[in-house]
Amino acid sequence: MTATFRALWEEIAPIGRSDDGGYVRYAWTPPELALREWFRAQAALRELPVVDDGNGNLFAWWGAPDAGDAVVTGSHFDSVPHGGGYDGPLGIVSAFLALDALRGAGVTPARPIVVAAFAEEEGSRFGLSCLGSRLLTGAVTPDAASELRDRDGVALAAVLGGEPTGHRPDLLDRFGVFVELHVEQGRALDAPVGVATAIWPHGRWRMDFAGEGNHAGTTLMADRRDPMLTYAFAVLAANKEARLRGAHATVGRVSVAPNATNAVPSRVTGWLDARAADTATLDELVAGIVHKVTDRAGRDGTTVGFAAESVTTEVSFDKALAARLAAVIGDAPLLPTGAGHDAGVLSAHLPTAMLFVRNPTGVSHAPAEHATDDDCAAGVAALAAVLGELAGWAELAGPAELAS
Amino acid sequence: MTATFRALWEEIAPIGRSDDGGYVRYAWTPPELALREWFRAQAALRELPVVDDGNGNLFAWWGAPDAGDAVVTGSHFDSVPHGGGYDGPLGIVSAFLALDALRGAGVTPARPIVVAAFAEEEGSRFGLSCLGSRLLTGAVTPDAASELRDRDGVALAAVLGGEPTGHRPDLLDRFGVFVELHVEQGRALDAPVGVATAIWPHGRWRMDFAGEGNHAGTTLMADRRDPMLTYAFAVLAANKEARLRGAHATVGRVSVAPNATNAVPSRVTGWLDARAADTATLDELVAGIVHKVTDRAGRDGTTVGFAAESVTTEVSFDKALAARLAAVIGDAPLLPTGAGHDAGVLSAHLPTAMLFVRNPTGVSHAPAEHATDDDCAAGVAALAAVLGELAGWAELAGPAELAS
Repeated sequence: MTATFRALWEEIAPIGRSDDGGYVRYAWTPPELALREWFRAQAALRELPVVDDGNGNLFAWWGAPDAGDAVVTGSHFDSVPHGGGYDGPLGIVSAFLALDALRGAGVTPARPIVVAAFAEEEGSRFGLSCLGSRLLTGAVTPDAASELRDRDGVALAAVLGGEPTGHRPDLLDRFGVFVELHVEQGRALDAPVGVATAIWPHGRWRMDFAGEGNHAGTTLMADRRDPMLTYAFAVLAANKEARLRGAHATVGRVSVAPNATNAVPSRVTGWLDARAADTATLDELVAGIVHKVTDRAGRDGTTVGFAAESVTTEVSFDKALAARLAAVIGDAPLLPTGAGHDAGVLSAHLPTAMLFVRNPTGVSHAPAEHATDDDCAAGVAALAAVLGELAGWAELAGPAELAS
Repeated sequence: MTATFRALWEEIAPIGRSDDGGYVRYAWTPPELALREWFRAQAALRELPVVDDGNGNLFAWWGAPDAGDAVVTGSHFDSVPHGGGYDGPLGIVSAFLALDALRGAGVTPARPIVVAAFAEEEGSRFGLSCLGSRLLTGAVTPDAASELRDRDGVALAAVLGGEPTGHRPDLLDRFGVFVELHVEQGRALDAPVGVATAIWPHGRWRMDFAGEGNHAGTTLMADRRDPMLTYAFAVLAANKEARLRGAHATVGRVSVAPNATNAVPSRVTGWLDARAADTATLDELVAGIVHKVTDRAGRDGTTVGFAAESVTTEVSFDKALAARLAAVIGDAPLLPTGAGHDAGVLSAHLPTAMLFVRNPTGVSHAPAEHATDDDCAAGVAALAAVLGELAGWAELAGPAELAS
């Protein structure tokens, strides 16, 4: 199994890899389009028809496309800038290999098994994470999506070849259960494979700081209205407020105008990523940051505006389903995560679960992200067992029962 | 005179102007090349041969090119990102108009009068301010300049059409005195025209902050080594240390990797611009910032390195020359400046003076920079009087006498 994993993994490993070992696979850019072609080729090899939902999501279908209660598994191809290679693609590669394992064991599933590739999960291109699954489920409308632009001003419709189709209840109605396998993104997992219990509520806020552009050499300190000062205060305040609440806050992206060494900036834009174990704590965290930063802006002679770009409430995965999958895998540990996933979006519509594969570095969204081939093979075996269980290989349970 | 100024000014006003009213005229980019063509056309109109010094600097020569003791005047065309339109070009336009005024008055100067356009004064493209005048005077060698790259990795030789010539003692020997007219960059001038006394010592330091890239959602706050925190601390520390010393410190430019909303950065680079009234204070200021930021990096689990990109010691302009020009203009006020200029570089080699034209907003390096047409016309009249004085129209004084 380990050798089999390595062989398939090598097919995609070079795609979008940069000199630092990180991956740059933004949605609908050449590397991600190459991965989509690879997906179609893998589906064709296995004689699986591919359904394109009109929102950029692809579904390779084993079993009658019009049959219901499908067992859907998969993840995404796109990456953050210079991210790891496992985040996303591991779930898709593992899905094809798990399907092979089932076929190799002579399984004919009682219900369809579907391999999914979701679009723009990271939001690295258009700024809205899980864009593909949000469109599919109607959580984002095509009208709202048509406003999105990437950093070069390109619209979603321009890369999609038209406006997205949006909500597809006809397709969702045929999904019985969704299982996403994903590399773990911290150091909380001490077994090869674990099962998710919940996703922390989380969101992104754009912080727009405005002041007065001026000369760095000639403008008296007392005469300045420097938005970089307010930005710097916000970075430190977000960190402090998160620590006080056992939450997470990060400012990892910034844009400055004019961004010149010898000019006091006129404008600084920073993006706040905030997450907490529950919605009340997250709300308190963001309110605390807004209060302190707004106060500081008054003292700096600058202004600051906060705009929520995406906020996701807490996701509790189906408890009965998680317990059942943990048992099928063999006493797999249960753990929550601070990261958002398409599984979180889909969980509002159907029973949903996630499997995590151990990450020895604990690093994520960076080149040091890792999973050993042995653990990845264990992930494939676990996913095969889970899909077989859910698709009726062993004792069949309907999604309605699972959701209870 | 005011109408004459406006007519010539309108010829260049649209070149490189962006939607916000600011100018983007980086050295050797199309707008700046268009201004160089305009310079050659203006010189041709006046039958002035143009000398290219092989370092990107242009000199339009009125009088025998091999004669010595030339009276040189001019400034630069390049801008900071979205800077004002007066910073630099006003000195060149005023030089041509002052020359016209002298000719209109029937003056035949006893020594050459030369209009200069220096290259890359702002350092906005290659990061080293006054690059043209530093090459001309040997303050920067062609070898050192060959290492410079712009933000796209383009080398100086690629835009210059070959390596720069570097030090030109043969040309400098023919310069007797340099006078640069420039828009004022603060609110210190309460007359149309003033005369500079000194330039504060100043420099640019690149601050390289390194940490560990990671996932913004899943990485515990305690496990992070986030270089954005150390950067933010540095921004606030630089401000505080400068205020304590009556000096100026600015962090106006930053670059982040990977610069993603949901990733703890692995690297942040910030540029510190620091200036003070004397060299000892500047040294203390930078040492204070280095000490505090290095200490903070230790607590953040990050590293920080400081690299001086350019440091300019204090410039005291020739006192006798400044007093004489102030008298010629008519009791013009004397004032120092915190901004660097080609005049500062040249002052190490020949008697040098600067005239400032009032800026009612006090804003510089930003679109709100301004000078009224009346004040600009007063600047031209003052420059004509100064050039006439220095070139022997009135009582002739040799540069040796001026420098005493």
